[in-house]
Amino acid sequence: MRILVHTTGSSPDPWIAEIRNEFPQAQVRAWHEGDNDLADYAIVWKPPLAMLQQHSELKAVFNVGAGVDAIVEFGDALPKDLPIVRLDDAGMGVQMAEYVTHAVLRYFRRLNEFDMQNRAAQWRFLKPHDKKNFAVGILGLGVLGTQIARALAHFGFPINGWSRTKKDVPGVRCYSGPAGLDEFLRVSRVLVCVLPLTAETAGLLNELVLGKLPQGAYVINVARGAHLVEEDLLKLVQNGHIAGATLDVFREEPLPPAHPFWQESRITITPHIAALTLRGDSVRQIAGKIRALERGEPIAGIVDRIRGY
Amino acid sequence: MRILVHTTGSSPDPWIAEIRNEFPQAQVRAWHEGDNDLADYAIVWKPPLAMLQQHSELKAVFNVGAGVDAIVEFGDALPKDLPIVRLDDAGMGVQMAEYVTHAVLRYFRRLNEFDMQNRAAQWRFLKPHDKKNFAVGILGLGVLGTQIARALAHFGFPINGWSRTKKDVPGVRCYSGPAGLDEFLRVSRVLVCVLPLTAETAGLLNELVLGKLPQGAYVINVARGAHLVEEDLLKLVQNGHIAGATLDVFREEPLPPAHPFWQESRITITPHIAALTLRGDSVRQIAGKIRALERGEPIAGIVDRIRGY
Repeated sequence: MRILVHTTGSSPDPWIAEIRNEFPQAQVRAWHEGDNDLADYAIVWKPPLAMLQQHSELKAVFNVGAGVDAIVEFGDALPKDLPIVRLDDAGMGVQMAEYVTHAVLRYFRRLNEFDMQNRAAQWRFLKPHDKKNFAVGILGLGVLGTQIARALAHFGFPINGWSRTKKDVPGVRCYSGPAGLDEFLRVSRVLVCVLPLTAETAGLLNELVLGKLPQGAYVINVARGAHLVEEDLLKLVQNGHIAGATLDVFREEPLPPAHPFWQESRITITPHIAALTLRGDSVRQIAGKIRALERGEPIAGIVDRIRGY
Repeated sequence: MRILVHTTGSSPDPWIAEIRNEFPQAQVRAWHEGDNDLADYAIVWKPPLAMLQQHSELKAVFNVGAGVDAIVEFGDALPKDLPIVRLDDAGMGVQMAEYVTHAVLRYFRRLNEFDMQNRAAQWRFLKPHDKKNFAVGILGLGVLGTQIARALAHFGFPINGWSRTKKDVPGVRCYSGPAGLDEFLRVSRVLVCVLPLTAETAGLLNELVLGKLPQGAYVINVARGAHLVEEDLLKLVQNGHIAGATLDVFREEPLPPAHPFWQESRITITPHIAALTLRGDSVRQIAGKIRALERGEPIAGIVDRIRGY
C-alpha cells in the first residue's frame, strides 16, 4: 500500500512516523510537486490542487481536520470521483465543548466583568443572569455541535439547535432550514457557530442575521472566520445590540495587528486554538477507515461535494 | 405554626413573603432583640446567639446557606438539643459546578494567558496541557463536591476526592482521613476546596499542605476564607510552586483594598458569588422539611455539632 502525506503549514514527518506505526508494510511518503507515482491513499491538510489532480487514482483523500472547505472550494477542478473523507471527531469534539462551555459560563456568570473589577481592585456584587432566559443556540448539529449541546445541557441551559436539514437531537429544541432560522435566532441568547464553511454558510453571520438575536445576545464563533462579517459584528457590539463575542477564527489569520477587534474589550480573541487536531487520535481513526476500505466495507465521513461537507 | 425569620445582612421581608406563600395559616415574623414569644421553627442566616438562646423551644433552626459555621461556632452556648438544619443543595450545587468548571477549563486551556495576550494584541500559540496529567482533586465530597466532580468528569478530567470519612463516589478516586491526604495532594494538579469550615479544616490550606501539591498546581477555594492561610498561598504563587488560584472567599470580606492578592495577577478574585442562596428553592426545600417534621418523619441535613457540619 502506498500513502501520500502533505500537511501545509507544518512538517509531514511526525504524521509519516505515526502512519508507519499503523502500516509497517506500506510505502508512506511526503508528496512533493511533480510526484506522479501511483498511490492508494492521501492524508492531507490544505493540499495544493496539483497534488489531487495528479492523483485521481487515489481510493480516498483523508483530511486531518473537521473542516474540508480548503478542498471542496477547488470545485470542478478536482478529479470527479475522488472520495474526500473528513475526520469524524478524533478528540476535537471534547475540546470544542470545553472551549464553548468556558465561554458560555464566563458570559452567563459575568466572570469577564468580575475580572475587570478584579484588575481595578473592586469588590462589587453583580446581579446574576437568569438561566431560564439564557438559551444557547448552536448553529450546526454535527458531531461537534451535538457534543457542545450535551456539555451545556449538563448545567441546565436550555439548548436550541439549527441545522440545514431537520435533525432530532435529544435535549435540543431543533430548528432547520432557512424557514427555521429566524425563530431559532429570536429565542437564542447565546449563538454558537460550528457550521461547516460552504457557499451557503459563508457570511451567514451578518448584520441582518445577528440583528435578529435578542438584545444583549452573545456570539461565539469556533467554525471559520468566513462565516462572520466582522465589521457587522463590530457595529452591533458597539451599538449595544450584541453584548460581546468570543472568536477563535478570523477572515485573516493571524488577526492583523491593526484589526479593530483588538481594541474592543467586549470581543475576546483566541488564536485558532479551540480544537487542535490530535495526531495520534486522527491517525488511528484514518487507519481504521483505510482497513475498512481495504476490506470493501463502507466508511463514515465521505464528503458530499455539492453540500460542501 | 409560628416561624421566626432573621437574615443578617439583608432584609427578612422577601423571605417572610415566600414562607407565607408556603404556610398561609402560619404566623411568620421577623425576630427582633427581646422577642421571647414561643415559636416552632426559625429560618436564619448568621443569627445572633441571643436569638437561639431565647428560643430553646424551637423544633428546628434552618440555615439558609450551605455552611453552618456561623452557628456551630457558638458551641456550648447554644441550647443543647436545638436541631440545626443546613440546606441540602437548593440550587447551589449547579452554581458551584459552573464556577469551578469555568475556573478549571480556564486554567487547563490556558485561557487566562490567552486573555493577557489578547489585551496586548498578541496572536501566539501556547502548547496545551495534557489531560491525562491534569487530575482535579476535590476536598469535600458532600452534595456540592459530588456535583462538581460530575461536571468535570463529563469533560474527561481524572477526578480525585478527599473526605474526612471514607466515601465511595462513582468516577472519583476517593481518599480519606489524615492518612489519605498526602497521596491525594501528590496526585492532584488542581485543588478545589468545598469543605465545611470546622475546627479541623480551618487553616488546612497552609504552606505545608499546599506544598505537597505537584509543581504548577492550581488552587480553587469556594468554601470559606478561613480554610486558607492567605500569606502561605501568596508565597507559594510567588515562588512558582503554585501556578495560580481562583478564590471566591477570603478571611476578611470585602477583601480589603490593601490586600496583596489584588496586586497578584495569577490570583483571580471574585466577591463571594460562586453560589448564591436561591430564595425560592431554599424556601421550598425548608417547607418540605417542616412538613416532614410535622408528620413525625426524619429529615436530611441535621448538623452534627461535634463534627461541625
